[in-house]
Amino acid sequence: MTVLARGSRGTRSEDVRRGNLSTLLTYVHVHGATPRSTLTSALGLNRSTIGGLTGELVAAGLVCEEPGRSYPTDDGTARSGGRPSYVVTPETERVQVLAVDVGVTHLTVARIGLGGVVLARRDRVYRRGARRPGDVTTAIAKIGTELIGEVSGDAVVLGVGVAVPGMVRRGDGLVRQAPNLGWRDAPVGAVLAEKLGLHVSVGNDADLGIRAEHVRGAAAGVLDAIYLSGHSGVGAGIIGSGTPLGGRTGYAGEVGHTVVNPGGLPCHCGSRGCWETECGEERLFELAGRPVGGGLTGVQEVVAAAAAGDRVARAALEHVAVWLGRGTANIVNALNPEVVILGGALEEVFMAAGDTVRAEFELSALAAPLDQVCIVTPHLGRDSTLVGASELAFDALLSDPLLELSRRTAS
Amino acid sequence: MTVLARGSRGTRSEDVRRGNLSTLLTYVHVHGATPRSTLTSALGLNRSTIGGLTGELVAAGLVCEEPGRSYPTDDGTARSGGRPSYVVTPETERVQVLAVDVGVTHLTVARIGLGGVVLARRDRVYRRGARRPGDVTTAIAKIGTELIGEVSGDAVVLGVGVAVPGMVRRGDGLVRQAPNLGWRDAPVGAVLAEKLGLHVSVGNDADLGIRAEHVRGAAAGVLDAIYLSGHSGVGAGIIGSGTPLGGRTGYAGEVGHTVVNPGGLPCHCGSRGCWETECGEERLFELAGRPVGGGLTGVQEVVAAAAAGDRVARAALEHVAVWLGRGTANIVNALNPEVVILGGALEEVFMAAGDTVRAEFELSALAAPLDQVCIVTPHLGRDSTLVGASELAFDALLSDPLLELSRRTAS
Repeated sequence: MTVLARGSRGTRSEDVRRGNLSTLLTYVHVHGATPRSTLTSALGLNRSTIGGLTGELVAAGLVCEEPGRSYPTDDGTARSGGRPSYVVTPETERVQVLAVDVGVTHLTVARIGLGGVVLARRDRVYRRGARRPGDVTTAIAKIGTELIGEVSGDAVVLGVGVAVPGMVRRGDGLVRQAPNLGWRDAPVGAVLAEKLGLHVSVGNDADLGIRAEHVRGAAAGVLDAIYLSGHSGVGAGIIGSGTPLGGRTGYAGEVGHTVVNPGGLPCHCGSRGCWETECGEERLFELAGRPVGGGLTGVQEVVAAAAAGDRVARAALEHVAVWLGRGTANIVNALNPEVVILGGALEEVFMAAGDTVRAEFELSALAAPLDQVCIVTPHLGRDSTLVGASELAFDALLSDPLLELSRRTAS
Repeated sequence: MTVLARGSRGTRSEDVRRGNLSTLLTYVHVHGATPRSTLTSALGLNRSTIGGLTGELVAAGLVCEEPGRSYPTDDGTARSGGRPSYVVTPETERVQVLAVDVGVTHLTVARIGLGGVVLARRDRVYRRGARRPGDVTTAIAKIGTELIGEVSGDAVVLGVGVAVPGMVRRGDGLVRQAPNLGWRDAPVGAVLAEKLGLHVSVGNDADLGIRAEHVRGAAAGVLDAIYLSGHSGVGAGIIGSGTPLGGRTGYAGEVGHTVVNPGGLPCHCGSRGCWETECGEERLFELAGRPVGGGLTGVQEVVAAAAAGDRVARAALEHVAVWLGRGTANIVNALNPEVVILGGALEEVFMAAGDTVRAEFELSALAAPLDQVCIVTPHLGRDSTLVGASELAFDALLSDPLLELSRRTAS
């Protein structure tokens, strides 16, 4: 479909090579080692063009090439005769980023190489409770500096991607509001950039969850997908028509704060009857008679108690499952996705009370979008947001590989 | 932002000219007569490239050129010396489409020329009541044939775009469900294509409303916008990150069927407490003690009565306005748009009870997206969906001007 946005630019012939370098590098970043013959057919470019592009990326140290041995052809048969196809592999050790997942009860910092390989990671677990943004950025900087210290001399760390469970302003990585961390207007991006001396991008955890699942998970190859992230509250990451949807400023996805029960409970956002007041972790804990702030471990305890016959826990789980199904139907009616991925606490609820979720979902979803959608759990498990954070940090390189690399290595 | 969709294609040099022809023709279609110098700067291409592209489009009869007289330059000053810039104008009379707006109480068929100019139109008004799809397609074909008969010999009618208030399957224009017309699985696209012998595209009315407002209305230049269409029910057309969002199959936007009041009224969709049961026309009529099915005229009557002091009408209007504000907040929290456009009956409610809509909206919207959004009425008035239907019919031409024109004129 033609998008008639005002101000679309034409394409100059010098843009073509730049765009193709981006497409090729992105392809091997997503798919890993790939024979040139596959690149030729997948990208729709001829052999000599692919050879030239690959040569530039090799010279820049972004990919390496070796002659293929007896690689199967696209149709699965072995190659017979002809030149062997070179295999193009991303330079995972040489080109790295830091990825950070800030959770309510955990902090993960990892070094991730081109191709999406986790090279090293540090995981910390916290009790729920207010943690000041300054303490968290200090911890990230300390761990990040350690991780960078391990990198060999010819490697380059391009930048940092950070996932936060809150509303993040796209332009500068200001965390406008992260209620479950107790943060407001926390300049996480700016502080980390200064501490680490690297470019830092910050994103919402659900937005990064869907990015990772879209690149290499449950929504790979899908144009319309939603990731619902349950971590105390509930947020959505949305891919629509193949594009990540952040909204005007990056705040899209606050589906936890859509009013679904106007006579319901007051919400910390100031409204009443928001979806997360009925399907969020805290509602589960309250109904199960457990202390607030149990995090994912607390949810797993309620699930285990329900499975062991605890009726109060079971009823609490059923309540949350009903509302999870109902709210998911709202989203499916509004957006007609192909895949809905339930992550974090929502995954636990779905695994333990999937029949209830589905039954309620089917009651409220319209027939046409209902026929089209699968509800699934993340393929990347708990690492969706971490991997998504690395994708954010790889963005600039993948958009314009040579420019970005020359910038980073010059600085 | 790089979109890491699998299977992205590279760009071949022969694709560049094709893409630039599309960009240039789209530009003049949207902006009307444009000096070549403006095209050069707007598209970021050099003068000789623009000259060559324009020449091809002139030869194909899609645009014409004439020497500019004393056209102002981009900064508003008059040109002094140098060659006069040619002005590129879309061939409105030569290149046309049929656009059709099927409403619950109206039918409009128009001939619209390249550049979005309405050249001729026929409007019919109906009482609400079941109209069979076959009767409607017969009426459209009859009027359409008349309109085509008026076209001069050297003109070409490229195809037909049809707006329907229902869920339309993108692939073949099957109207899967249009509750307010009483239609189910109506093959509108196929029937009209056979009757008219033209390519027919069918779309949802709200999806086409936002397209028109995005191209030449209240959302021009905006990347994230929503059009809420109130015609008996309520549907949304969504532009996200500059792209129209149809969802997997084209059914996205059924926000009227998001449950916002679980203890509320049964909805014709089979669920209960759907948004349109509280903010739709029929709820207004019911609360105002008026017969169902009054359509836009009926809504205007309630508004007039409320303005004249009818307390029952006023209370009905206030009820609907409260729910309009509340549901709009849900959408704004979920999608963080820059503009929300209220069309059809919702425009009437907003004009008559805007303070109530805004107050309720502000109660439920989160601060961050609230700061970013404007709620407005359509710039194209009642014609948004009609103009959007024409854009649908122009899509193929604008995506690949020369190919499409050769196809149409050959057949």
